[in-house]
Amino acid sequence: MRGSSLFTTVTAFFASQNVETVYPINEMGVTPAMGWNNWNAFACSVSEDLLISTAEKMAAFGLRDAGYEYIVLDDCWSMGRDSKGNLQYDPAKFPNGMKSVAEKVHSLGFRFGMYSDAGSYTCARYPGSLGYEEQDAITFASWDVDYLKYDNCHNQGLSGTPKITSERYRTMTNALRAAGRPILYAICNWGEDFPWKWGPTVANSWRMSGDIYDSFDRPDPRCPCGGDEYVCAYPGSHCSVMNILNKAASIIDTSLPGAFNDLDMLEVGNGGMDDEEYKAHFSMWAAVKSPLFMGNDVNVMDAKALSILNNPAVIAVSQDPLGVPAIRRWRYYVNDTDQYGQGEIQMWSGPLYGGDQLVILLNAGNSARKMTATLADIFCVAAGIAKEIKEDWDIYDLWANRMDDATAQSIIDSGSLDAASVKSFYYNATQTSFKDGLAANHALLYGKLTGTVEAGGAIETDVPRHGVSMMRLRKRTAKADSKASLKVQDA
Amino acid sequence: MRGSSLFTTVTAFFASQNVETVYPINEMGVTPAMGWNNWNAFACSVSEDLLISTAEKMAAFGLRDAGYEYIVLDDCWSMGRDSKGNLQYDPAKFPNGMKSVAEKVHSLGFRFGMYSDAGSYTCARYPGSLGYEEQDAITFASWDVDYLKYDNCHNQGLSGTPKITSERYRTMTNALRAAGRPILYAICNWGEDFPWKWGPTVANSWRMSGDIYDSFDRPDPRCPCGGDEYVCAYPGSHCSVMNILNKAASIIDTSLPGAFNDLDMLEVGNGGMDDEEYKAHFSMWAAVKSPLFMGNDVNVMDAKALSILNNPAVIAVSQDPLGVPAIRRWRYYVNDTDQYGQGEIQMWSGPLYGGDQLVILLNAGNSARKMTATLADIFCVAAGIAKEIKEDWDIYDLWANRMDDATAQSIIDSGSLDAASVKSFYYNATQTSFKDGLAANHALLYGKLTGTVEAGGAIETDVPRHGVSMMRLRKRTAKADSKASLKVQDA
Amino acid sequence: MRGSSLFTTVTAFFASQNVETVYPINEMGVTPAMGWNNWNAFACSVSEDLLISTAEKMAAFGLRDAGYEYIVLDDCWSMGRDSKGNLQYDPAKFPNGMKSVAEKVHSLGFRFGMYSDAGSYTCARYPGSLGYEEQDAITFASWDVDYLKYDNCHNQGLSGTPKITSERYRTMTNALRAAGRPILYAICNWGEDFPWKWGPTVANSWRMSGDIYDSFDRPDPRCPCGGDEYVCAYPGSHCSVMNILNKAASIIDTSLPGAFNDLDMLEVGNGGMDDEEYKAHFSMWAAVKSPLFMGNDVNVMDAKALSILNNPAVIAVSQDPLGVPAIRRWRYYVNDTDQYGQGEIQMWSGPLYGGDQLVILLNAGNSARKMTATLADIFCVAAGIAKEIKEDWDIYDLWANRMDDATAQSIIDSGSLDAASVKSFYYNATQTSFKDGLAANHALLYGKLTGTVEAGGAIETDVPRHGVSMMRLRKRTAKADSKASLKVQDA
Amino acid sequence: MRGSSLFTTVTAFFASQNVETVYPINEMGVTPAMGWNNWNAFACSVSEDLLISTAEKMAAFGLRDAGYEYIVLDDCWSMGRDSKGNLQYDPAKFPNGMKSVAEKVHSLGFRFGMYSDAGSYTCARYPGSLGYEEQDAITFASWDVDYLKYDNCHNQGLSGTPKITSERYRTMTNALRAAGRPILYAICNWGEDFPWKWGPTVANSWRMSGDIYDSFDRPDPRCPCGGDEYVCAYPGSHCSVMNILNKAASIIDTSLPGAFNDLDMLEVGNGGMDDEEYKAHFSMWAAVKSPLFMGNDVNVMDAKALSILNNPAVIAVSQDPLGVPAIRRWRYYVNDTDQYGQGEIQMWSGPLYGGDQLVILLNAGNSARKMTATLADIFCVAAGIAKEIKEDWDIYDLWANRMDDATAQSIIDSGSLDAASVKSFYYNATQTSFKDGLAANHALLYGKLTGTVEAGGAIETDVPRHGVSMMRLRKRTAKADSKASLKVQDA
Repeated sequence: MRGSSLFTTVTAFFASQNVETVYPINEMGVTPAMGWNNWNAFACSVSEDLLISTAEKMAAFGLRDAGYEYIVLDDCWSMGRDSKGNLQYDPAKFPNGMKSVAEKVHSLGFRFGMYSDAGSYTCARYPGSLGYEEQDAITFASWDVDYLKYDNCHNQGLSGTPKITSERYRTMTNALRAAGRPILYAICNWGEDFPWKWGPTVANSWRMSGDIYDSFDRPDPRCPCGGDEYVCAYPGSHCSVMNILNKAASIIDTSLPGAFNDLDMLEVGNGGMDDEEYKAHFSMWAAVKSPLFMGNDVNVMDAKALSILNNPAVIAVSQDPLGVPAIRRWRYYVNDTDQYGQGEIQMWSGPLYGGDQLVILLNAGNSARKMTATLADIFCVAAGIAKEIKEDWDIYDLWANRMDDATAQSIIDSGSLDAASVKSFYYNATQTSFKDGLAANHALLYGKLTGTVEAGGAIETDVPRHGVSMMRLRKRTAKADSKASLKVQDA
Repeated sequence: MRGSSLFTTVTAFFASQNVETVYPINEMGVTPAMGWNNWNAFACSVSEDLLISTAEKMAAFGLRDAGYEYIVLDDCWSMGRDSKGNLQYDPAKFPNGMKSVAEKVHSLGFRFGMYSDAGSYTCARYPGSLGYEEQDAITFASWDVDYLKYDNCHNQGLSGTPKITSERYRTMTNALRAAGRPILYAICNWGEDFPWKWGPTVANSWRMSGDIYDSFDRPDPRCPCGGDEYVCAYPGSHCSVMNILNKAASIIDTSLPGAFNDLDMLEVGNGGMDDEEYKAHFSMWAAVKSPLFMGNDVNVMDAKALSILNNPAVIAVSQDPLGVPAIRRWRYYVNDTDQYGQGEIQMWSGPLYGGDQLVILLNAGNSARKMTATLADIFCVAAGIAKEIKEDWDIYDLWANRMDDATAQSIIDSGSLDAASVKSFYYNATQTSFKDGLAANHALLYGKLTGTVEAGGAIETDVPRHGVSMMRLRKRTAKADSKASLKVQDA
Repeated sequence: MRGSSLFTTVTAFFASQNVETVYPINEMGVTPAMGWNNWNAFACSVSEDLLISTAEKMAAFGLRDAGYEYIVLDDCWSMGRDSKGNLQYDPAKFPNGMKSVAEKVHSLGFRFGMYSDAGSYTCARYPGSLGYEEQDAITFASWDVDYLKYDNCHNQGLSGTPKITSERYRTMTNALRAAGRPILYAICNWGEDFPWKWGPTVANSWRMSGDIYDSFDRPDPRCPCGGDEYVCAYPGSHCSVMNILNKAASIIDTSLPGAFNDLDMLEVGNGGMDDEEYKAHFSMWAAVKSPLFMGNDVNVMDAKALSILNNPAVIAVSQDPLGVPAIRRWRYYVNDTDQYGQGEIQMWSGPLYGGDQLVILLNAGNSARKMTATLADIFCVAAGIAKEIKEDWDIYDLWANRMDDATAQSIIDSGSLDAASVKSFYYNATQTSFKDGLAANHALLYGKLTGTVEAGGAIETDVPRHGVSMMRLRKRTAKADSKASLKVQDA
Repeated sequence: MRGSSLFTTVTAFFASQNVETVYPINEMGVTPAMGWNNWNAFACSVSEDLLISTAEKMAAFGLRDAGYEYIVLDDCWSMGRDSKGNLQYDPAKFPNGMKSVAEKVHSLGFRFGMYSDAGSYTCARYPGSLGYEEQDAITFASWDVDYLKYDNCHNQGLSGTPKITSERYRTMTNALRAAGRPILYAICNWGEDFPWKWGPTVANSWRMSGDIYDSFDRPDPRCPCGGDEYVCAYPGSHCSVMNILNKAASIIDTSLPGAFNDLDMLEVGNGGMDDEEYKAHFSMWAAVKSPLFMGNDVNVMDAKALSILNNPAVIAVSQDPLGVPAIRRWRYYVNDTDQYGQGEIQMWSGPLYGGDQLVILLNAGNSARKMTATLADIFCVAAGIAKEIKEDWDIYDLWANRMDDATAQSIIDSGSLDAASVKSFYYNATQTSFKDGLAANHALLYGKLTGTVEAGGAIETDVPRHGVSMMRLRKRTAKADSKASLKVQDA
């Protein structure tokens, strides 16, 4: 029997029995990790200045308190190893040393992530950790690192079966544990050798595809597996949002609290997609419980990118206490294809905290369209007719209360959240956890009530080209307008 | 040379030579196992009460004597291991201990099955048996367990070749043998690494696909391999009846008496399919010699589910002494597809005891249709023209004598088989084995004579939407009506 | 660089240098093995009587001297092992012992082949040789066995990579060598793990597909890989002639003298195909240098089967001294498909002894058709324009001189070759090897001159439904009719 | 993160930090190797005479100084091993010994390459180096060999995972290093087990497909994987130019300076393609940074082959200091298919030295056509809108200045470069490296200015059937004609 949906049952059971909860490899990362990583925007152009200035801006823009917790330094920070084999940071880039970077990051209220590789070299050909796992884990711990992204380049051919690959990555699992510092462990082997089969006993997250690039659906030959292929002998790179999402559809339910499929970092704000496409990208990553790492340059943050990334109603889906990924319920090809010959529509849904249900209508066709989702499809479950179909539901639009451009721009321009208009859009997760906020019916986490669907009925909505309609269904408990029960966060 | 159809020859040979018959790993499970397993209806909600009350109802409804032998407790019974590493049952669920459960199950005339996993954790994240095989086998034996379902979750990446996977499962084969108690061994690795290639020397049955769900043919992305794919790098879950059946078509002839392909537990009665679909599901599972484990809640058993599950003419196909799975003879796509775009028709056939031949016309199109099967197709064999084509055959409909709703409901309502109407539908396999019943020409095992097909001819029959026509052909030995030779079981 | 076409160069080189010719694993099987194997017609019904009576008939019908050298006993001869682990033959089937069988077979002018399995059990579940290789090789040698067919059932999961599988089979290679008797080694692992990649250093031949069955092109789900798939994770059984041939097209050029791809035993004469289909089957097996093992019951041999199997012009292609398989030059699907939806046409060609060229036009469409092959296609070679295209060629039809039915029937009826009509059809390869016969321009080996194709031209010919036109092109060396140079074998 | 495009960054970084540049396995082969190999034209017909006479002609025709550096002796040079296991050359072919051949090759200004095999036998069945790696590396070093082509035949089944295969090849990596002489290491395992994943830490180049043959796009069953398949369980042989190119599209960006994907040796001049096809073949091999080994017989060199092979503007692309392969940006099937049913068009582009951009429009349709490439497609990059799209560019046609036939023929006829007409076509890379020539704006390396494309615009050009238009875009830095800045090489 397989069944990630059992996890809440199991967790509840262990809790009720005073038995230690069995998280996959540690007690970290119970919801998907959130943060910022320099790679998508800066690649090898890394430095202490970049990290600290970014962290400062993230705090000033309210993104830290919106949920983005980790500042992650990717490849190219190294100067090699010293005569004892210890990894050396590049002093030209990090003149005050890596521990100092960690301290500054910590002092800004973030956690600090670094990067290495389960091979002889990193992808950019700096020294990798293969054969140095214990020594490097100690180094990272000594630098007060809180997160390790662990890549797959130049792995000396140590792949080909789940056994070969998982052993290579488990060596670092054990090394991190031995090093004694809690370090969230994010492996990046691009879906090779089926990490969703063995990931939960090895890492907190695992990449399940080749690298993302900043395109909604353009096929690139370097990302050779397309469509619905859930297995790919050569995962490649330059995979579009739709390519990765469709690969994820088959395996996404292998995610568990503390052990998530990682669809790669966000491209929101990098300029290759339009606003609806970025909204769709962000919505789907949140819905399927992928880690959410911003990948843009916050120095050139535009208002629309900010108001996507800081939407509390969507982030609350990502950080939902159940930790259950949405599932694709249907998919159809459509005739109005775009310049790349792509065109399809999908519906995804899944359970949320409080008996709520997430629904996303995804329009990857080339024109806006009306789309419909029946309760029967939304609550499709394995065993028989779901009782939820026989209930009435209120529909909350999770994008309806998106921050307006003027407010977002005022934050970017002022570097502060003091403007009066900010308050009605801004949820502070540092102050009140998403779990507590949801439990307290905090209005910002629930979007905007836009309608009702009766038992046995269907939702119909307009969905823009390359866009989504993202909704949260809440049981209609009485005649009273359930919206009335939503509260405002105590300031 | 390959040839499971040789087994009867071989068995006969060994018998005639006074050489011990070589069953795959033990002398158990010569016909496919039958019973009840809690998972499909109850998942982790397990307890002594559930098992015992279910066993009582199964006995009262006549299902035990219809052939359902094993009461199987699936995942979530554990409390972890004690300080010596011994598995501990959860005393809240099993207050009298597991051995007591076994005793009660035994006293009700059933055998008792349990569940573990060839990994570090079970699918629901309780302790698995990987690395504890010998100790756990002794525990199960000490609890008087008669059957072990052995799952594949959290296997530490120990997969990728038949060698890696079969070694992992064979460790438990040997541990069970060493523990000394006869325990039927049912492995559940979802078809990974081709268990049909090595299963017969490892286990009594092996799952050959991802988990079933309660749908006739709806594709779900979590079951990524469709159509006729006999190999699937990610077997997934939420596989429909038709999905699993089509996967089975290529590999089903690897089953042998004592070593069967397992198409997963039954969904009959769980509410997701209509009556014809459940009949088709049950018919095909019986025809291909899959183990038959009821997966419904017997407390809410409805009359139609009962009269599917207790049909002696179909169960006699499952438990046929030859143990030869039916083979798909043809398959065509049809234009009248259903809401999921699915539509096809198939014909399956295969040898049965006494020179009989099973024929199933399967209509997975979206409307009732006339279907035809020629004797040439029904008796298609490898070497030349089958002599059977030149014979005349009587046609017995195996569903024609299905118990009527009123009778079935009276059993459910009264919890007894005393009603006068029961007798004409009820075969007691505890009293008379299927082999003996078939040899004695027991009428209930042979369905209803509905026609004849002459040498070189064809059978034409109406088949309902998403349904089957299931027939048994018997040689017309003389002008006399062969029906006359059928006898009634001695009460 | 790959290039089996180099073999003649290499062989010639070694010969010219007085260096020992490097045959793959031994000096046997330089041309494809020919003989008879009981499986296709008799399966497990084996006995000394069957083998000896068959050998006697084969000799009497002239088949031994036509080239069929090995009498092979397949599975089911065993009684298990004795207390020392030695394989025991079944005395009920072989009352005089196996060595006696070998002696009788030898005395009739044949060599004797037996069967075992690289697993714990044979396919029919008798003891296999896995773990007993050395002991069993000694047993076979002690029984004067000349040929070992070595199967793949119940191999304990020892498969999944070429390394795992080749090691299992190489153990017997070494055991046979150590046993000291020359034993032709024919492995039968159904193409699993790419035996064409490693076969030449392990065995004299290797099966490259699932088992054949007696059908020209009917798809069966038990043979799941179709079309042009050259790799098949589950080779299955019940593979048609066209299925196997199309699989062979990609890998057939890996065959070398002494190391051949084996397309499985012949079905000629077993009743499932018509005469043209059997001719096509036999022609193609000969053309691609598959071993040629008759698989029919010689007690019910019909005239047409005999005159296919004894055609010297076709057998001379099989036993051609170059040992180079024909290659498929083109393939097209056609619209006139048969009852199974199959329909295609192909052209195959390849070099033969003496600068000749084999051409086969294969019509697997559902009706007779004119077919054309250009010299450009026939002589398609890798590097540039072949000089052969600029020559004139005589066309010899290799089936035109097929023995007539009356003559064939007279042989069957009389069990002798004395009838006057026999002489003009009968080539005695025991008396004169094919190599010598070809060198001597023996007319029976060259078919019938039916036309000429000029430089740059094309051959056009009528090809029957499911049939072939099989031709040998010979360079037109002068104005003189080259047919004049053909000689009759000295009687 | 993956990203071969980072290499220049990394190299620059290491240089700036006085840290040793990390080349993959040695400091050789920073640009793709160029030379001549006997196989495609001569196969096993090798001798000292062939090598030396070829080298002499290559020098005389100016091909050495055009960039062709290695004279490589392929298979069939061996006489076996002596009693100590040392490889013996064949004295009939190499009467003065192999070291003498090396000396003569060196004295003619070339480097000397040899061939062995990572198996028990070479493809032509001479002794292979498997198990003799250290001894053979010492032998090659003792013969003053500069390059080793290392093949994959008869590898004893040591394949199936990247681990198994890479270990086999790495044994020779280490042996060559231990032997002490710098030997460029070119592995030839036909793409089996994904050499692009592990090649950079094993070798200087790796073959990524089955063997090429002299055809532009004819499918051959012996090359079973077609279209866009980047992984092929049986790579086969007889792969066309288009087949190999399309396989390369997915994995070509794994090449790095010093570690290149090898698309196999050139067929230019061997007669199986027309002039446009050979130009396309050569252009694409140069564009994707494949090693460039002439494969024709220089004794019958025709003028058009020479003027393809000696085009400095195209060779400068191959030897570009960045070492970044062009990427396929789009591909469309077209309706005007050729006799083999093939028809498609593609656009490739990629960065070149000096901020230039390579653009190739490839017309594999069956008729000449106008083709268009937009700057947006040409500069498609992962992160957002490329700034290059907003620039104006000059277009240089890299074939416009191809040597005319008369001049080429005069070189062939005279064996000298003295004719007055030669000077304007001839670039001497021995005298001035491509890097220096590019830096000096040498006109011959930049083709002919044929037009301009404005910011946001598109290039439109006529492309012949089965041909290319190959262009170099240079930024238009001022109003001045940038052509004016091109210089002529100092003679």
